[in-house]
Amino acid sequence: MTVDWGNVFAGRVAGMGASEIRELLKLLERPEIISFAGGIPDPDFFPTAAIARAYEKIFQSNSGAGGALQYTISEGFTPLREWICAYMGRRGIQAGLDEVLVTSGSQQALEFVGKLLIGPGEKILVTRPTYLGALQAFSPYEPQYLSVPGDAEGPDLAAVEAALEQKPKFFYLVPDFQNPNGTTISLARREALLDLCAKHGVPIVEDAAYTELRYEGEAIPSIVALDAARNGGKITNVLFCGSFSKTMVPALRVGWINGPAEVINRLVLMKQAGDLHTSTINQIVLHDVVSQNFDSHIRRLRAAYKERRDAMLTALDDFAPAGVTWTKPEGGMFVWIELPEGTDGVELLARAIKDANVAFVPGSAFHADRSGKNTLRLSFSNNNPERIREGIRRLCGLLQTVAA
Amino acid sequence: MTVDWGNVFAGRVAGMGASEIRELLKLLERPEIISFAGGIPDPDFFPTAAIARAYEKIFQSNSGAGGALQYTISEGFTPLREWICAYMGRRGIQAGLDEVLVTSGSQQALEFVGKLLIGPGEKILVTRPTYLGALQAFSPYEPQYLSVPGDAEGPDLAAVEAALEQKPKFFYLVPDFQNPNGTTISLARREALLDLCAKHGVPIVEDAAYTELRYEGEAIPSIVALDAARNGGKITNVLFCGSFSKTMVPALRVGWINGPAEVINRLVLMKQAGDLHTSTINQIVLHDVVSQNFDSHIRRLRAAYKERRDAMLTALDDFAPAGVTWTKPEGGMFVWIELPEGTDGVELLARAIKDANVAFVPGSAFHADRSGKNTLRLSFSNNNPERIREGIRRLCGLLQTVAA
Repeated sequence: MTVDWGNVFAGRVAGMGASEIRELLKLLERPEIISFAGGIPDPDFFPTAAIARAYEKIFQSNSGAGGALQYTISEGFTPLREWICAYMGRRGIQAGLDEVLVTSGSQQALEFVGKLLIGPGEKILVTRPTYLGALQAFSPYEPQYLSVPGDAEGPDLAAVEAALEQKPKFFYLVPDFQNPNGTTISLARREALLDLCAKHGVPIVEDAAYTELRYEGEAIPSIVALDAARNGGKITNVLFCGSFSKTMVPALRVGWINGPAEVINRLVLMKQAGDLHTSTINQIVLHDVVSQNFDSHIRRLRAAYKERRDAMLTALDDFAPAGVTWTKPEGGMFVWIELPEGTDGVELLARAIKDANVAFVPGSAFHADRSGKNTLRLSFSNNNPERIREGIRRLCGLLQTVAA
Repeated sequence: MTVDWGNVFAGRVAGMGASEIRELLKLLERPEIISFAGGIPDPDFFPTAAIARAYEKIFQSNSGAGGALQYTISEGFTPLREWICAYMGRRGIQAGLDEVLVTSGSQQALEFVGKLLIGPGEKILVTRPTYLGALQAFSPYEPQYLSVPGDAEGPDLAAVEAALEQKPKFFYLVPDFQNPNGTTISLARREALLDLCAKHGVPIVEDAAYTELRYEGEAIPSIVALDAARNGGKITNVLFCGSFSKTMVPALRVGWINGPAEVINRLVLMKQAGDLHTSTINQIVLHDVVSQNFDSHIRRLRAAYKERRDAMLTALDDFAPAGVTWTKPEGGMFVWIELPEGTDGVELLARAIKDANVAFVPGSAFHADRSGKNTLRLSFSNNNPERIREGIRRLCGLLQTVAA
């Protein structure tokens, strides 16, 4: 008898369906296509020379190389955790070593949040739209999603309060230049969200993947910093997910999660059970690079990506037909387009690839309730300004056929 | 109000308790202690020069470095998966690219198996003893463990048959030089286990972490190879977890899982949701090294670890008091000691660290039912023969006090 695999899968596997979009995006390898789909950084902006030197240094001594290639502790490379504590400290958070876990990218931090907090059928609170990768990380733990709408300042407070009455396990937020729609939560709204969540005893999970990439305006304190300010400098009601994928490079797969020690203790056990630890040598290399180059590298990135954001916004101003609206993000990698009601973004993508050699991600993918069919996410991070302009020109040509 | 974190944890967190052993093993950093505790390879045997050259090569071209530091597909670096398919092919398994997923160490493969197959309260079948890391990977998914005893040939068939009647979701096995007890399942027993599991439609999860490290005797076909031989060369009823941590280096965190495409498809989605992909640059480096050096490096490792296994077995012959028995593994990293009934391995470890400056892992940690209190796991992989002899001398001095 052969195993009937479909029959031995656990119930949670039902929450892990392949998406139609994933299939469409496989077509993007054709070089004639200008893709605004992936939210990926441009390798031209990687700190490659610094990374190469960091590897070289490791292999200059035998014992250094031996340690870098050996197992390490699940908590993460101690000097890297110390650097993270100092980084958080500059933002007003007194983080101890036992309040930081190094993860394999912040995607793994989200996966751990889901595993730690979501029981089957329990409610969790997200924004509409929200980060697709977070939905993918959470869904196998079988939550019931509560989605709250928002405006340019952030989530709608009345909707949040109503949702909190339903006792969700946590509220997941990307406060800065949100993936997918580029919006940033205002300071007043952050304080109000902290108030409401504290009132209901509901933790906030803050995803800060894009926070460093601000191109204009004043930085707004992270929610975790506002939480710490209320609690003597200590993280109390927030789990903070940090990433080096957008600020440094994605391929090392290094991120972190910061939270109260009683939570991090559990997550360390989860890390040990899940993959033992994040690559030793990658943590050492990343620590070397951020110790020397973090601030100067971020300045370079901001200048480079600002030019691309500006190119996309200008091209939209120049080419977009009436009836199409879009966000003006102060940072990050994404512009969010809203089309007339009744437009289907998935159908539009198929036509964009076939007829216009341009691609994006349909916005419905970022909605836990599968709404948002008339929205699109465009990333400006991985094309130069000329290609961005040409791509927007092509896209807007197609949009003429759906607008008003 | 501050969040009551203990109250928001999901039910599965109860299965993730910290172990008393973990606390004891933190004491091992004292240099005067000879530790047989960790099952870790000796960095002196790492292919360090080949790894250093592989990194150098990547940074010799800008575009190569850019790609190596960028996001990649969740399935894993294609040339590495091709290498794995060829490796499996030499063992008689026709593995296609869509039947292999690269994981962050084989620990992650075990974590994925748990997530894919175990629903709360469902039964799974393990041996007594079994690999502690597998128990840690599976337990958060809240299985009910069925533990079967065995002999020098492998699991007891009558016990296996009785357990299979209870319809477990899978049978987890480490057929070669099992961590923790060093035993190897005989060919006849492997065939019989395949027969029984096929009869009940229960998949086998084969953990091959140590399979390449054989120091004497003929290699026995992997269970996956026997399964493929029955099914026209295709993996049918088995999931095979492979590791480069013991054959190459642990720190790159690269392993793989091989299984029918319908299973791997699901695991690719799980990988995407869990940490997007394993480090790009690590996969490229590992592929470079295994392509050039795999067989010759394995030959060196076998000679080096055989010397250490022999040193441990000889020292046990020379120093062990009557009433103490141990296994004679044909490979791997572990010798398993059985002490008179009534001895408590955890208590003994505390005394060993305090009074004898020697350490090991108490065997109870490797029992899903917490039996095996009178057993110990010793690793011979990470001390030279002289230190092994001295450590066994110290340990046996202590054992005089507990032996008959």
